[in-house]
Amino acid sequence: MTQNIYDNEQFFDAYGRLERSVHGLAGAPEWPALRALLPEMRGRRVLDLGCGYGWFCRWARDQGAARVLGIDVSDRMLARAREASGDAERDATIDYVRADLEEVELPPAAFDIGYSSLAFHYLTNLPRLIARVHAALTPGGRCVFSVEHPVVTASLQPDWVTHAGEPAWPVDHYFDEGPRTTDWLVPGVIKQHRMLGTYLNLLVRTGFSIAHVEDWGPTPAEVIQRPDWATERQRPLFLLIAANR
Amino acid sequence: MTQNIYDNEQFFDAYGRLERSVHGLAGAPEWPALRALLPEMRGRRVLDLGCGYGWFCRWARDQGAARVLGIDVSDRMLARAREASGDAERDATIDYVRADLEEVELPPAAFDIGYSSLAFHYLTNLPRLIARVHAALTPGGRCVFSVEHPVVTASLQPDWVTHAGEPAWPVDHYFDEGPRTTDWLVPGVIKQHRMLGTYLNLLVRTGFSIAHVEDWGPTPAEVIQRPDWATERQRPLFLLIAANR
Repeated sequence: MTQNIYDNEQFFDAYGRLERSVHGLAGAPEWPALRALLPEMRGRRVLDLGCGYGWFCRWARDQGAARVLGIDVSDRMLARAREASGDAERDATIDYVRADLEEVELPPAAFDIGYSSLAFHYLTNLPRLIARVHAALTPGGRCVFSVEHPVVTASLQPDWVTHAGEPAWPVDHYFDEGPRTTDWLVPGVIKQHRMLGTYLNLLVRTGFSIAHVEDWGPTPAEVIQRPDWATERQRPLFLLIAANR
Repeated sequence: MTQNIYDNEQFFDAYGRLERSVHGLAGAPEWPALRALLPEMRGRRVLDLGCGYGWFCRWARDQGAARVLGIDVSDRMLARAREASGDAERDATIDYVRADLEEVELPPAAFDIGYSSLAFHYLTNLPRLIARVHAALTPGGRCVFSVEHPVVTASLQPDWVTHAGEPAWPVDHYFDEGPRTTDWLVPGVIKQHRMLGTYLNLLVRTGFSIAHVEDWGPTPAEVIQRPDWATERQRPLFLLIAANR
């Protein structure tokens, strides 16, 4: 079972103060790039794996999605999601369901769009979930997701080094896939390091075709607006993938 | 035009002493992984882009390829390739042609297999070549190639750092695609850094479907045989890609 760090009180409080928690999608710098990979939402049935506070579910609803199912393992996150969604949930456009993505069952051919933001790197059994997502999508459907980039998750000591007078990100133990314990908001957060090829070959093997792969970092223009993001031009922080069913 | 470092006398001599030059495919540690991505050669028409000494061309011939075209920009490399191929070239199974891959024209739908080993990272206009390769393959054909991994090519100061007491590879300037000048065998060798997404999206946009992506490094068993390869377990040295037409 995946560590459910989001129901840790200290983690939950710290997470709630992140920009992406306070401002939702607008506070997530990679959102415009991820959004660009998404098809039109109008009339579509949308699945959000690791929906957290439900920001994406509500965005999909506001874009005209016919149905949105948000799944998360964290009771605390879902309570917030339900509270924020209010009428939207009552009118049954959005359903929030508590489930561990390691074990979730999904109805077959019930969705047009599968989405996940920064959740898959917590899972130990990603092949199982990808197979379920594939079966849950209709032919022609699309899966769009983000994870922490393999360049970022590889190191056993993930911290900037100074190299030739500038910050550089160390890559080590790249081929040793598996858990990485880091201190992020609280000590002892466990994420899974996977190689780039592992993510892509898993999709291909499951029957998806790769439509787009993006190493995400802020643009130079964004760094001018946000000088504190400057180091994120050195390394790819997130990996964004779009794959067609 | 790409720098033709292979016709530099000092480079050519040093290159000729590399294991992969002396022992051919058997001296290239990534060869078994690359070979695993190749379809059956028997009866196929094979294109080798950046064929060098012609080791792969001769291997393809020995596997029963119907026709092999090896292209390289280096006169010195081609002279060696022709010399080593001997009768094979005379009996017209293998053709060696001198051309700059930046400007080469290829006959349409004339090949079943396109192959390239560690050549594409020298090219400034890779989209042009990928489009030519796509047109040169028959439907159902496959393109298999290796390049230096984006993790390796990113840094402006590509050299190991010591991090937490172990060697780590620095990633910096990842998003700044373009030339990187390194000292490899001789000073001033120019290679092009491209992001992972750039390679993959170029293939998809051109009409290929991604079949396999592999971050290459030696296996733990190989490192036991070759302790001098141990640091290559820290970072992905090569990127191997198979794509279907």
